[in-house]
Amino acid sequence: MEKISSLQNPKIKNINKLASKSRERKEQGLFIIEGAREITLALEGGYTLDSVFVCPELFAKTDYPQALHTISPQKLFEVSPEVFDKIAYREGSDGLLALAQSKSHTLENLSLPENPFIILLEAVEKPGNLGAILRTADAAPADAVIICDPHTDIYNPNVVRSSVGCLFTVQTAICSNQEALDFLKKKNIHSYAAELNAAEFYQNVDFSHPSAIIMGTEADGLSPFWLNYADSRIKIPMKGKIDSLNVSVSTAILTFEAMRQRNCF
Amino acid sequence: MEKISSLQNPKIKNINKLASKSRERKEQGLFIIEGAREITLALEGGYTLDSVFVCPELFAKTDYPQALHTISPQKLFEVSPEVFDKIAYREGSDGLLALAQSKSHTLENLSLPENPFIILLEAVEKPGNLGAILRTADAAPADAVIICDPHTDIYNPNVVRSSVGCLFTVQTAICSNQEALDFLKKKNIHSYAAELNAAEFYQNVDFSHPSAIIMGTEADGLSPFWLNYADSRIKIPMKGKIDSLNVSVSTAILTFEAMRQRNCF
Repeated sequence: MEKISSLQNPKIKNINKLASKSRERKEQGLFIIEGAREITLALEGGYTLDSVFVCPELFAKTDYPQALHTISPQKLFEVSPEVFDKIAYREGSDGLLALAQSKSHTLENLSLPENPFIILLEAVEKPGNLGAILRTADAAPADAVIICDPHTDIYNPNVVRSSVGCLFTVQTAICSNQEALDFLKKKNIHSYAAELNAAEFYQNVDFSHPSAIIMGTEADGLSPFWLNYADSRIKIPMKGKIDSLNVSVSTAILTFEAMRQRNCF
Repeated sequence: MEKISSLQNPKIKNINKLASKSRERKEQGLFIIEGAREITLALEGGYTLDSVFVCPELFAKTDYPQALHTISPQKLFEVSPEVFDKIAYREGSDGLLALAQSKSHTLENLSLPENPFIILLEAVEKPGNLGAILRTADAAPADAVIICDPHTDIYNPNVVRSSVGCLFTVQTAICSNQEALDFLKKKNIHSYAAELNAAEFYQNVDFSHPSAIIMGTEADGLSPFWLNYADSRIKIPMKGKIDSLNVSVSTAILTFEAMRQRNCF
């Protein structure tokens, strides 16, 4: 196994480029996964690893020692603690970091059950919110997360980290608003646009049939596109002075109400 | 009005100290509020401003021009765009930043209705999560947020920012676990500890009487203290591969179920 102890090693420099630049991730078709558990989940989710970097001193303390067993030796590189510290982006890392090949996320690739429940995000901006929504989608579970015209790259290290691996367990598609609308219409999935001024309260609508909730951006809510073309508009009742819920919070309230109605509990 | 155009001005240097150091905020009893809307909300919430810094070029575009009217001229300082850029921590700032006096947040100061609903957070760690929970507490509304043994300072600029002003509209208390438990017992408020392994599902418990939900930390969940001493343990059903909800998401799901049961909609 090749050992890397220099911060000037081109592989190490490339990791830092992939961490900070969306453009590099797109061009190289690679992204970073940190943590033995997350890497295991990515492999289970059908991702292909390009290379794996292990810091034995840190990896000795991992809860997932078996993570290394399935990785072919020619993809494995040993790095010194000093080098690992330079590429790690989590606190309390367990000494394993991989470069994985990104996937294409098309609507056509989604495999949906007969009565799907879908979370659709229009142009979500903050990696932490996308990560939290993927966690909600895994737990509920939602059958897919569709991201329209995203302002954040789903392979941003902060999405990967804040999703705690749910990026690899949840089906996702990335497309335009129009493509998503056409898809929902074709599949007879009822679309519910969430917004502040809607007439209908979320707990009074029927989520028991094929449904998609449509969530807007953090700053501006939904665009006119979805307000015009969604089948229904719904709102969460708010009675405070400011009445502003975080988008990952609103998404979870609607999703778990849908699960309650579907007798998923 | 005094004009400040040097980055070396002691007031400017002090703002940057207050932004980065919890210790400085405690010693000086001051914290930073950015944004005309947030400053207005703090004044309405009974906070006292120590000094206010305005950048006229940016403030010309604010949606809250009236924010300046209530501020006495001797507390007001004009700063150049270059200086404001150095003290601002938000994107798209509207050119107003204040130092405000922190308050004491005692249990005794809480003013509760006859049938309160309370959110209790044990040792919350991430400012963004605390901010999102304060937004949920404002919107639901919850009657108070109690923070036990916090690992984050509620006057951290990232809490103030991510709460979008809800820090000033929601009653909060900071205390130890034992003090909070004694308070809930004395007030006959039923405590529900949220955890992964609880027997009872949240939608089957009765939140219609005086209730507090007890939420653990992001990393470790609740400590044995609350698992032992809370009146009930409850869980959110999860059916995914990873089953891990963000703490601000779990808090919102429980809070809005309580509102649903209380016919608050």
